[in-house]
Amino acid sequence: MNARQESIGPGSEAVAPTLDTLYAARKRISNDVITTPLLRSRVLDDLVGGVILVKAECLQPTGTFKVRGAFNRLRQLSPQETQRGVVTWSSGNHAQAVAAAAKAIGAPATILMPSDAVPAKVALTKSHGPTVIFFNRETDDRQAIVQRIVEESGATRVPPADDPHVISGQGTAALELLEQAQALGLDPEALLTPCGSGGLTAGSAIAFAALRGQAQVYGVEPEAFDDTTRSLAAGKPVANRLKSGSICDALLANMPGALTFAVNLANGVRGLTVSDGEVLKAVAFAFRHFKLVLEPSGAAALAAILTGKIETKGRVIAIVCSGGNADPALFAKAIEAEAK
Amino acid sequence: MNARQESIGPGSEAVAPTLDTLYAARKRISNDVITTPLLRSRVLDDLVGGVILVKAECLQPTGTFKVRGAFNRLRQLSPQETQRGVVTWSSGNHAQAVAAAAKAIGAPATILMPSDAVPAKVALTKSHGPTVIFFNRETDDRQAIVQRIVEESGATRVPPADDPHVISGQGTAALELLEQAQALGLDPEALLTPCGSGGLTAGSAIAFAALRGQAQVYGVEPEAFDDTTRSLAAGKPVANRLKSGSICDALLANMPGALTFAVNLANGVRGLTVSDGEVLKAVAFAFRHFKLVLEPSGAAALAAILTGKIETKGRVIAIVCSGGNADPALFAKAIEAEAK
Repeated sequence: MNARQESIGPGSEAVAPTLDTLYAARKRISNDVITTPLLRSRVLDDLVGGVILVKAECLQPTGTFKVRGAFNRLRQLSPQETQRGVVTWSSGNHAQAVAAAAKAIGAPATILMPSDAVPAKVALTKSHGPTVIFFNRETDDRQAIVQRIVEESGATRVPPADDPHVISGQGTAALELLEQAQALGLDPEALLTPCGSGGLTAGSAIAFAALRGQAQVYGVEPEAFDDTTRSLAAGKPVANRLKSGSICDALLANMPGALTFAVNLANGVRGLTVSDGEVLKAVAFAFRHFKLVLEPSGAAALAAILTGKIETKGRVIAIVCSGGNADPALFAKAIEAEAK
Repeated sequence: MNARQESIGPGSEAVAPTLDTLYAARKRISNDVITTPLLRSRVLDDLVGGVILVKAECLQPTGTFKVRGAFNRLRQLSPQETQRGVVTWSSGNHAQAVAAAAKAIGAPATILMPSDAVPAKVALTKSHGPTVIFFNRETDDRQAIVQRIVEESGATRVPPADDPHVISGQGTAALELLEQAQALGLDPEALLTPCGSGGLTAGSAIAFAALRGQAQVYGVEPEAFDDTTRSLAAGKPVANRLKSGSICDALLANMPGALTFAVNLANGVRGLTVSDGEVLKAVAFAFRHFKLVLEPSGAAALAAILTGKIETKGRVIAIVCSGGNADPALFAKAIEAEAK
């Protein structure tokens, strides 16, 4: 990767995300996020015959890595932009992160959430005080609603992934992870991240390509929502056929964004898929062996490891586990099923 | 506290735990334990009107702070002692920690567990390969069984709390916590720890007394098992009337140990009590707002904060949350009850 910052389009002040913008992001958000621990489990390592390093991003404020990107974007707003506020769309994790960041900097926030969002996520999002607007995932034109809000209020769009500042923010998780692994004398040969819109995957791919060029980065998606997997294989963005229908509600983005796709393609990212059943077993495993609360989407990478989607024997592999905004009933079902 | 190391009895090579032995322990176990994060929740801080710093010790290997003490003791065994092995007794958390430490150093381990131990804890303990012997909490003479094992095998006793090396190990959690708080520019005015046999409380009290003399350390106990609370108030060790009957299975020690009691008394520790119902609500709160899996015993300090057992308004208060070896059915019940 060329570390030089490039403009991503005429009239835009945004620059393409690079290792430099990741380091800048890390500095910018250092008081807004925590250094999450890199965990290991003897049981998991024995089970898969390798060393699995778990970056516990579910422990971030608001329960996901999403605060990294949201704070990195919002901390760069001008006073005028701050006054006009921000607008975003999200099934609940990016929503909470933007709502929390907006509250922290004193900006009004308008957040579109799908009407089938997990109730716990709606409640947690509302607790930060934003304006929440619901839309129907199947029938409403979400982009048109966002456009109207932007025109009426002058609010700044904060996309869940397809934004260089958001991607740079998410990538700081991988910067940390690599430092923590190094401190343990371990060198990850691969990284698995959950993949919805692909922002975390893209940011992490930039970090890994620059600092650990031989390692393979994977985005892990739900089986029927494998747009990134298929797009990377095809060399061009393709969309999912379905718009809803997996318990991985945070990973249902319809197709890769232009920027996330370009970054992931350029860095040789590949896709893996997991089923809802595999994910529920990973939720139970994380409960028992890592003492972490993961929502289904947050357990996607762990599910891929537990089901042997890539070779683990004798290898050091890092995974990101996030988010942790689990629906209590579904979580209870997952851990009780495993206990039987 | 006098930081000079003192012999604790004739014929014993053990020295009384001090700030120096805590620092030595920290160095000794640095490759065996992780630096657990110090977490905050905006929701909790808003709720109680203060700043609550949560030391997430449930993320340690084996799910509790107990690995600190176990590794600190076992890493000091001579080659001969290692060969003869160790023996301990525990409802499941210290059991797992000793079993894991014994496996790591290649020592045989015999572990007495009560016959009513949480099945998940028995399974996790056995997964490390020790010899597990069950005893009846109400009718068996546990000390006599341990004595017989020591006589037959020459095994070294590793008490769950009443041992200077174990206390020094547990106290390293508080050393870390104080450094992490300082890095945030925060100065805890009080520390709340779960309290069973009182080892974590004692080790933490040594650290706080030496480094943060004005702060008050509290041990938090289940209502009917408040032996430490009453002993400290009475100025002499007194026993619990009951031997079982709380969901806080890790906090049912019958009375304070001689050394833990002396250390806690000398450092001005006080006791607080919480009910099983309060603890279950804290388990659900940690699930929702900290994304941590806590067993009932592990949520005792959080329960004391949530129910206003001490003044929180405008104060900075640190708590230790550990362990995380939750029974799935009970955990499911706790989080579903709160969601209704």
